[in-house]
Amino acid sequence: MPELGAHTWVVPGGQVPFPAHGPEPEFTGFDQLCVLNATDREAEVSLDIYYEDAEPVGPYRMLVKARRIRHIRINDLIDPEAIQLDRPYGCLLRSPVPVVVQFLRQDTRLPGTLALTGTMAHPV
Amino acid sequence: MPELGAHTWVVPGGQVPFPAHGPEPEFTGFDQLCVLNATDREAEVSLDIYYEDAEPVGPYRMLVKARRIRHIRINDLIDPEAIQLDRPYGCLLRSPVPVVVQFLRQDTRLPGTLALTGTMAHPV
Amino acid sequence: MPELGAHTWVVPGGQVPFPAHGPEPEFTGFDQLCVLNATDREAEVSLDIYYEDAEPVGPYRMLVKARRIRHIRINDLIDPEAIQLDRPYGCLLRSPVPVVVQFLRQDTRLPGTLALTGTMAHPV
Amino acid sequence: MPELGAHTWVVPGGQVPFPAHGPEPEFTGFDQLCVLNATDREAEVSLDIYYEDAEPVGPYRMLVKARRIRHIRINDLIDPEAIQLDRPYGCLLRSPVPVVVQFLRQDTRLPGTLALTGTMAHPV
Repeated sequence: MPELGAHTWVVPGGQVPFPAHGPEPEFTGFDQLCVLNATDREAEVSLDIYYEDAEPVGPYRMLVKARRIRHIRINDLIDPEAIQLDRPYGCLLRSPVPVVVQFLRQDTRLPGTLALTGTMAHPV
Repeated sequence: MPELGAHTWVVPGGQVPFPAHGPEPEFTGFDQLCVLNATDREAEVSLDIYYEDAEPVGPYRMLVKARRIRHIRINDLIDPEAIQLDRPYGCLLRSPVPVVVQFLRQDTRLPGTLALTGTMAHPV
Repeated sequence: MPELGAHTWVVPGGQVPFPAHGPEPEFTGFDQLCVLNATDREAEVSLDIYYEDAEPVGPYRMLVKARRIRHIRINDLIDPEAIQLDRPYGCLLRSPVPVVVQFLRQDTRLPGTLALTGTMAHPV
Repeated sequence: MPELGAHTWVVPGGQVPFPAHGPEPEFTGFDQLCVLNATDREAEVSLDIYYEDAEPVGPYRMLVKARRIRHIRINDLIDPEAIQLDRPYGCLLRSPVPVVVQFLRQDTRLPGTLALTGTMAHPV
């Protein structure tokens, strides 16, 4: 299996949309990091969260199995501390094996609407 | 004609939106890979699909003619197996000639709304 | 003034949304190439349009003045031939000086809605 | 702390959406530059704004503290001159330390709708 991607990825523009409207869980607002690990080795990736007005928090640790993707909702991160909704943040993901990381946001703050945005994360 | 782009491209954040609302086929939800082959050689590109909870599936094979684009809807892939809608996936595209690949999603899961998102794929 | 960017940029995923709804001209659907020329030299950029089922068409020529941006609507291109709306295409922009190119789409095909998507173009 | 990113970033496709609809301040339209400074040194970043029909304006100066993010709304820039809403622009951000920059737009020009788009800025 190929080793492709980078070991470090950055997303500066995080802010989990809140509140959400519409049927749950499909229309819950979220920020998501989508990780693809094409290698044959399991990867324990770590995430550091940066804020405007406080020291970085982390590492948050998550497992991405060999030859697997994982779509990580920032909303779901609770250890070392829960991510506060609607608070601006940025994040830095590190992986022991090369991976590729994409950022996706689903925003349903305005009742009856759905907005999406996303971008490939920045590889270092 | 120039040879431009890369031989391998990655999109980690796939999930074909389902169900869809609005007149078909214009407002069918989809994930799309847009491929540009500026070379003078026809390219049989191959696609491997990665999942959260199963081994990768592929290769899916598609032809992109010389000096042509092709907009490939992930929804339409059926061989070696149909892509399940609303299931998280990532994908890895390989081409024998350099190409450029862009990802686009159209989401009409919420009746009366239309959401788009996209990004350039990640070149390896 | 700095010389920054690249001489060649690619966008594979074009398709000018049609029809449009809502007040014009603000809510006309469009695909747009946004070009920044930070150099001190005027740039005559050229655009080649690639299709799924026909030979490339071009060059379309446009001037981007020194130390200026230009937001080019694909809809407005008419020479050597008008761009057909709602037809899949890709494009290749060449510039004699380094520039930076971003792609933006505004989609108002569904009455009462507005969808946006975009990405940095791919530099070669 | 790691030094990651680039010293210069470009966004060619700016245009602050105007007018806005919906409750303020949540649904005010904006263009935003999201900056992550993972270094241990405070960064005074500078921004030059490029136009279609006038000389560049700048530098706009902003502080991004060490180990912090900052989400900068273009709408809020007033010195050396206020940014005119609904006017096409591009921008060039420079930083004395490596940073990562993402562009985000929130558009509520059409009453009852919310559209988002964004992309990583282009590193030079």
